[in-house]
Amino acid sequence: MVKTIEWKDNRVLMLDQSRLPHEVIYVECTDYHKVAEGIRKLWIRGAPAIGIAAAMGIALGAQEIIAGNFDELVEEMQPIFNTLLGTRPTAVNIHWAVVRIKKFLQENNRESIDRLKQMLIDESNRILEEDIAVNKAIGEWGAQFIRDGDTILTHCNAGSLATGGYGTATAPMLVAKEQGKSIHVIADETRPVLQGARLTSWELMQSGIPVTLITDNTAGALMKRGLIDLAIVGTDRTTRNGDVANKIGTYTVAVLCREHGIPFYVAAPLSSIDFDMASGDLIPIEERSADEVRTVNGHQVAPEGVNVINLAFDVTPAKFVSAFFTEKGAFKPRDLKKLMREDIDLDSTRLQH
Amino acid sequence: MVKTIEWKDNRVLMLDQSRLPHEVIYVECTDYHKVAEGIRKLWIRGAPAIGIAAAMGIALGAQEIIAGNFDELVEEMQPIFNTLLGTRPTAVNIHWAVVRIKKFLQENNRESIDRLKQMLIDESNRILEEDIAVNKAIGEWGAQFIRDGDTILTHCNAGSLATGGYGTATAPMLVAKEQGKSIHVIADETRPVLQGARLTSWELMQSGIPVTLITDNTAGALMKRGLIDLAIVGTDRTTRNGDVANKIGTYTVAVLCREHGIPFYVAAPLSSIDFDMASGDLIPIEERSADEVRTVNGHQVAPEGVNVINLAFDVTPAKFVSAFFTEKGAFKPRDLKKLMREDIDLDSTRLQH
Repeated sequence: MVKTIEWKDNRVLMLDQSRLPHEVIYVECTDYHKVAEGIRKLWIRGAPAIGIAAAMGIALGAQEIIAGNFDELVEEMQPIFNTLLGTRPTAVNIHWAVVRIKKFLQENNRESIDRLKQMLIDESNRILEEDIAVNKAIGEWGAQFIRDGDTILTHCNAGSLATGGYGTATAPMLVAKEQGKSIHVIADETRPVLQGARLTSWELMQSGIPVTLITDNTAGALMKRGLIDLAIVGTDRTTRNGDVANKIGTYTVAVLCREHGIPFYVAAPLSSIDFDMASGDLIPIEERSADEVRTVNGHQVAPEGVNVINLAFDVTPAKFVSAFFTEKGAFKPRDLKKLMREDIDLDSTRLQH
Repeated sequence: MVKTIEWKDNRVLMLDQSRLPHEVIYVECTDYHKVAEGIRKLWIRGAPAIGIAAAMGIALGAQEIIAGNFDELVEEMQPIFNTLLGTRPTAVNIHWAVVRIKKFLQENNRESIDRLKQMLIDESNRILEEDIAVNKAIGEWGAQFIRDGDTILTHCNAGSLATGGYGTATAPMLVAKEQGKSIHVIADETRPVLQGARLTSWELMQSGIPVTLITDNTAGALMKRGLIDLAIVGTDRTTRNGDVANKIGTYTVAVLCREHGIPFYVAAPLSSIDFDMASGDLIPIEERSADEVRTVNGHQVAPEGVNVINLAFDVTPAKFVSAFFTEKGAFKPRDLKKLMREDIDLDSTRLQH
């Protein structure tokens, strides 16, 4: 499994994903400014991964602080919080990490400063381990739906590189491999930013899973030839009713799957399910720079100034989703809302293959 | 309208499409070797366009020949035929042009050598004019199906640049504009070779038709938002039953159109309809170099050596096609085969909007 980020010898080692797949370089971050730079410059990306990076950045920054008491420590940590929060202002996981660490500090305000510094390191490692545990659980539940010999389509990168490890959409693939199943993955290249070409195909090759890269135009033709058995994608945000916001093109994959009678699965940790939002129509869709489409790797491919629509995400209605793979089990879209309640027996709700 | 190729002052002027959209350069071909180089190096591409180029190359080559009689002329023209046939061995339109010119020569074997040389120039211009006339007729029939205010999706380049002029899929758009209809075109960029980004968006801008470029992943999301009214694509080969081979990704557009109740039209000159082939299952699909997917404009975007499937075309079954636009009218797929017969009254078969 590819390591995205780890704490080692009082440093944070961060894989510089912006250089993939050409160079595999782990940046040694010896202070929190370097961690912030990595988040800002997209050395690390993917919601769970940048949450982990923020927590490790906070722990790293705390080590440098000279404080006589708890209040001084918290005071001195404010610039660290602010720097990290300022790297990617819309990234909810950085905000989540800061809130969690602040709460953690308050809960342990009687500990010595030295002890607290060590506890912050342990807590950031715990965030990493929890993320991996969630993904492994997603993988265990999802792998039930993968048979020996299956060919699996995926879109964009919801892999190890976007998380602490295992990934979300890739977790069932990795677990299926561990179970001795022979599988083959087809990776959509995923224009405009080519996460499938640059990241997914690379990390699956590292994990020893046979992978074939295709243009996004090719999935339909392969399905028509009977060459794809199932699709697994990730999600940026899924609403209570099971509508799925994910990388642009996901909706097209879902429509193609239904046309060909191919199961379409969404790997969705509970943290990605927005139980407060009733349906996907309410999700704001980011429109990104025209230059992402006009250029590829900085090289102009279209007429100067041509008009462009560049939607970052699309919304796949719940009716297209065969099942969600979560850390609590696999569920039909209509059963997702039961995960909001603690009094429901999930055993009877889980989808079995 | 963009000029792809023309005969002017004893030269062939050929737009070097390989430099588009960055540079607009017409290469002056003063001998047939230059025309052959242009075909080989893809300065000119698109089945009708390279047929026209081959005919003009033959006419250009003939001007240089010193021959005492008809047999000597034909003898001296063999190297010209062979050179042009060798540029792109699978291009049926070069073969078609050579056969047509050879037949033309035999039909006029009593003419003087000087007269024949001029007649070859006239004949190559006639091939160009016939192609434009076919495309204009396609445009007239197709424009009926375009309403004022419509937004039209197209895929790849079946435009002026692929033909002598007007294009096939673009002809109804150009005619609709001439009719005073306000239209807007959405162009799929069309990975891997990006003909939509490089060529279609450029030529529509030249023609004054508002165009918006999108990644191939985006069409589905726009359809779901109700932003696309109809789709028009070209075809490399359509079989007797109405199955359509066209650039990879066309099938996905067709599936998306049906899902959203959007008409899907195919602009198909009769020369592209293979009445000898019963169905699309029989069409051989070219698989092209993996490097087209691994790289963009020569720049590596994927891991070195990653496995790739790169299908050049896909086949859209007839059931997805709302109508074919031909130079004889618009027809339902099931009526295409009637075009094989001369005793059928097309007026009663044509589709009216």
